[in-house]
Amino acid sequence: MWKNRLQPYEILSPEAVETIHKQAMTILEEIGVDFLHDRARDLFKQAGMKVEENRVRFDSGWVLEMAGKAPEMFDLQARNPKRSVILGGDHMVTAPVYGPPFITDLERGRRGATLEDFNNFDKMAQAVEQIHCAGGTTVEPEDLPLSSRHLDMVYSHIRWTDKPFMGSVISTENARDTVEMASIVFGGRANIEKTPAIISLINVNSPLRYDDRMLGALLEYSDAGQPVIVTPFLMAGAMSPMGLAGTVAQQTAEALAGIALVQLIRPGTPSVYGSFLTNTDMQSGSPAFGTPESAMGILASAQMARHYKLPFRGGGALTSSKTPDGQAAYESMMCMWPTVMARVNFVLHVAGWLESALLASYEKFVIDVEALRMFEWILDKGFAVDDEAMAMDALREVGPGGHFLGSEHTMRHYRTGFYRPWISSTDNYDRWTRKGSMTIDKVATEKWKQLLAEFPDPGIDPGVDEQLQEFMTRRKQELEA
Amino acid sequence: MWKNRLQPYEILSPEAVETIHKQAMTILEEIGVDFLHDRARDLFKQAGMKVEENRVRFDSGWVLEMAGKAPEMFDLQARNPKRSVILGGDHMVTAPVYGPPFITDLERGRRGATLEDFNNFDKMAQAVEQIHCAGGTTVEPEDLPLSSRHLDMVYSHIRWTDKPFMGSVISTENARDTVEMASIVFGGRANIEKTPAIISLINVNSPLRYDDRMLGALLEYSDAGQPVIVTPFLMAGAMSPMGLAGTVAQQTAEALAGIALVQLIRPGTPSVYGSFLTNTDMQSGSPAFGTPESAMGILASAQMARHYKLPFRGGGALTSSKTPDGQAAYESMMCMWPTVMARVNFVLHVAGWLESALLASYEKFVIDVEALRMFEWILDKGFAVDDEAMAMDALREVGPGGHFLGSEHTMRHYRTGFYRPWISSTDNYDRWTRKGSMTIDKVATEKWKQLLAEFPDPGIDPGVDEQLQEFMTRRKQELEA
Repeated sequence: MWKNRLQPYEILSPEAVETIHKQAMTILEEIGVDFLHDRARDLFKQAGMKVEENRVRFDSGWVLEMAGKAPEMFDLQARNPKRSVILGGDHMVTAPVYGPPFITDLERGRRGATLEDFNNFDKMAQAVEQIHCAGGTTVEPEDLPLSSRHLDMVYSHIRWTDKPFMGSVISTENARDTVEMASIVFGGRANIEKTPAIISLINVNSPLRYDDRMLGALLEYSDAGQPVIVTPFLMAGAMSPMGLAGTVAQQTAEALAGIALVQLIRPGTPSVYGSFLTNTDMQSGSPAFGTPESAMGILASAQMARHYKLPFRGGGALTSSKTPDGQAAYESMMCMWPTVMARVNFVLHVAGWLESALLASYEKFVIDVEALRMFEWILDKGFAVDDEAMAMDALREVGPGGHFLGSEHTMRHYRTGFYRPWISSTDNYDRWTRKGSMTIDKVATEKWKQLLAEFPDPGIDPGVDEQLQEFMTRRKQELEA
Repeated sequence: MWKNRLQPYEILSPEAVETIHKQAMTILEEIGVDFLHDRARDLFKQAGMKVEENRVRFDSGWVLEMAGKAPEMFDLQARNPKRSVILGGDHMVTAPVYGPPFITDLERGRRGATLEDFNNFDKMAQAVEQIHCAGGTTVEPEDLPLSSRHLDMVYSHIRWTDKPFMGSVISTENARDTVEMASIVFGGRANIEKTPAIISLINVNSPLRYDDRMLGALLEYSDAGQPVIVTPFLMAGAMSPMGLAGTVAQQTAEALAGIALVQLIRPGTPSVYGSFLTNTDMQSGSPAFGTPESAMGILASAQMARHYKLPFRGGGALTSSKTPDGQAAYESMMCMWPTVMARVNFVLHVAGWLESALLASYEKFVIDVEALRMFEWILDKGFAVDDEAMAMDALREVGPGGHFLGSEHTMRHYRTGFYRPWISSTDNYDRWTRKGSMTIDKVATEKWKQLLAEFPDPGIDPGVDEQLQEFMTRRKQELEA
């Protein structure tokens, strides 16, 4: 977890925030949101909302009152207490890419992802300090049965990392299994109800619709008091209007409606205002990532979340590129700078994302981590203005025309005073050529292999492992029957 | 020229600005600055400064008074009046890479640069709307005699672009030749003294030393009322301390001393507070570009320039990478975001920089322009919050579960509502594969060839051209004798 002490950048004036807020309220009251789940609609009905077929039209004051029950900040525990994190405020928590069915590396090329890849991404997440949460469906292990693979994914997070992880959200049952497994690891359900141990990504089927499977998971996690990230899924131009401001208003309405439902089930359950907002390339009809719209959307969305005093999820190292090239890097950075400047609390997709989230990449994972390390340096060090940073002694010692390489001040700081690159090369041309003229993607290949070879196994308590295995064996029999 | 209406990001508190300012004043008073040029020292002496050998120790109040004579904003004319720019305030002017002796492209590889490369960079700068100034020594034409190549460089800017350009700074004579050539183009020296037409980069030989050649050029341009960008050349750890705050204090002292000299020669001559600030990789001793230190340095330096109400130069698409790969892209973006957020007025090195400025790259030029186009989009469009951007009509029309692709609102905006990529691919994997699985550097090869093939020749008045040719012929005879 990082502390982000940079002043958040505000792209919206207070008036603009108010305008977007008001439109979100109008959307909730006038247009409403579809909830394709009986229990959700019944709950809203009992609370006095207007329900017609699947459509729920809201009393906006009530939605705000409900959203106000969500904590501004909360703890998320890891099985290693040193890895536990805080969500909200000026805390920043990172997690790898989520969702790709395909995986690639420079040697084996693009292919369907497997459990081995999933395990490897967990191992890399564990090995790298800049990744704070193991993530969720980092890749889809396509070699496993769809009905039960969530068990193997959750187990992988638990076994190969000691960091917080994300829950399965495919269905009520998957969510329940995740809660059961976490209960085993954390010594019983009461312990995770007291301090949550699973954070889950609930996507809205935008525009303005929650489907039954996501609602099933949302309800299950809410019942257990486990945090949910309620995230409208917005490719502006397709799932929301071509106006960014209108898109953020829609996003706000969708997120608040979902968060109100969480609070209705179990008041005080941690709920995160999520944003997954980019635009459609209107020429091709494809989603476009790492765009100017996405950059501005991150800044504006974070401001809206702060307006409601809700923790915020958004941003990430997003790109439409199919390969870890320059495009992948500049698009990722087009999003990562605003992610840092917006003071995003939970950043999914910080490492490994390619091809509009269809493809996870071992090399992109490593390249993204170098960028994370640089941002971490900025957040850790900031721009210090104390006596050591002012270095007046060095200026006096060296004087005009000298150099600082041998000054006392430099001697005190040369080991740790400046950022040290992890994979980036500052070699001169001759040295770089002698080392094989490697582009950064090739350097990244060496690095991920090294990460896996030197993976620091966190181990697992044999008793806990046995219980997990028993549970999984039983559930697989039931699910695969 | 862009208007940058984003609120500048302030990394320094007002107290931090004051602390850095005070130390800069102490440096000027107590340590002083070496000026290796008789006229410069004589001028300072006459103004009452304390001069011992090459060292000048300043009355800091006098330095501030002098710097206060530099305009907060000024015009820089181009031979095409539509291309004239304003420096200062919320204006942002971009120029290509400056200085590399080597050039590369994917087909021909790395080699010594030639006049043909120089001409080509001018043609690409002319072809691309996101480059506002043709630049200066975009590459060193190593096929031409050192004594006279500045004439061919200045001529290239004049002939192949109709944008503002930068003057030669190698010596007094080179500066004088530049002024003469500009006087021919702009109808006489009086016209450029009235509205400047040459902007020049004066590097400080940091720490705290101005050499005779740079001072010769500074004096010549100041005599002619042509703007200078006074730029300390700081690889922290070598030319400045390992403390960033102390580095910025030193930079401030150096820049203000040079600007005071300009104002002493000709009060009111436009003077830009320049920053070229990065850190040394203390492991290799090499300069490192695109670093966290550089990113923070841009933000802090811009704030100091604003403190003195001076136009500011800094930032750019900087990298230590030897090739247009992912490293080149993420390091460039590590600097370009703060460049935009800092509201830099003049951004040198926005396109084509590789290998710590030793290498210019055709492909990197194109890749950098894609990033510039994205930033331009953000600055042009901003985050609009008007009725069209709020798109309430579309939200009402589409409703829950629909899609916006066919809505009236989308019909009104789909052509121009979102950023359109120039080289970035949003193609799906199959389509991208069918097109040849091209990484972005290979796409960039096609694009720069296209730019040169379709180069829009701005032409030149035959009478002006004849005068320029006569002048150059005469000067070459004199210089190469």
